[in-house]
Amino acid sequence: MKQAGCPLCESPGGDLVFQGAAFRVIRTDEGGFPAFYRVVWNEHVPELSDLAPADRALCLDAVVAVEQSLRAHLHPAKVNLATLGNMVPHLHWHVIARFEWDSHFPAPVWAAARREAPPAQLARVAALRPLLAADMVRQLSTLAPANPRR
Amino acid sequence: MKQAGCPLCESPGGDLVFQGAAFRVIRTDEGGFPAFYRVVWNEHVPELSDLAPADRALCLDAVVAVEQSLRAHLHPAKVNLATLGNMVPHLHWHVIARFEWDSHFPAPVWAAARREAPPAQLARVAALRPLLAADMVRQLSTLAPANPRR
Repeated sequence: MKQAGCPLCESPGGDLVFQGAAFRVIRTDEGGFPAFYRVVWNEHVPELSDLAPADRALCLDAVVAVEQSLRAHLHPAKVNLATLGNMVPHLHWHVIARFEWDSHFPAPVWAAARREAPPAQLARVAALRPLLAADMVRQLSTLAPANPRR
Repeated sequence: MKQAGCPLCESPGGDLVFQGAAFRVIRTDEGGFPAFYRVVWNEHVPELSDLAPADRALCLDAVVAVEQSLRAHLHPAKVNLATLGNMVPHLHWHVIARFEWDSHFPAPVWAAARREAPPAQLARVAALRPLLAADMVRQLSTLAPANPRR
């Protein structure tokens, strides 16, 4: 069910990395964070607990798959996971690789910036993104049914 | 396994609401947020994907149980879930009831404050916390084994 006026009902919400029947994964360009992904549940539901247990498990498996790809390919200092949705109450998970050199570390990405991220580091991560995306697709394809479920 | 110097290995980390064999739930006092809880995995692991699938599922079931209690008792505008751990890389989930009148809404709790939360609203939520805690304990007890697993 689509919600009129909801940006995540009306558009992918970023560069589409993987489109599944129940969820999609997008990459978003957020300044000093070169590996900022989102797992977006396709259906418009506000809260994680609105999902039935099997869907919740699938959604979290997708989040974990993205996290595992980030860890395997980028070796970040930390992975940050969050679903807030105060502005856009359509279930989406931020899955963010964090680096000591990023614009905010160790502060949350929503706090004030502490520095400019070094362009060479940003470029190094950007160069790894195609391989990273291929790995995400490979992992997510094993989770998500090829045929629409709904 | 405890990590020397880790605050979540060395202390509960807040007011203990529920102590299970694998995880605990604490409440923390964070200014303008009257219902800010954390699900802390007892063992020192940095990332969600460090947990075996069954433990991951248990951890997320605990997060969802806390979310469901918040929704049932407080009817928040939104629930925010996050595991960051940039400062304290010991797996813990923030589970936060958000209200239109809280100090930061609709911004994340880590962004700049937008207002002072009204004392009457804070007091109204505070008065509901004993009932809320009892409900969390009831729900979490069905998830968590009474006897230590490790």
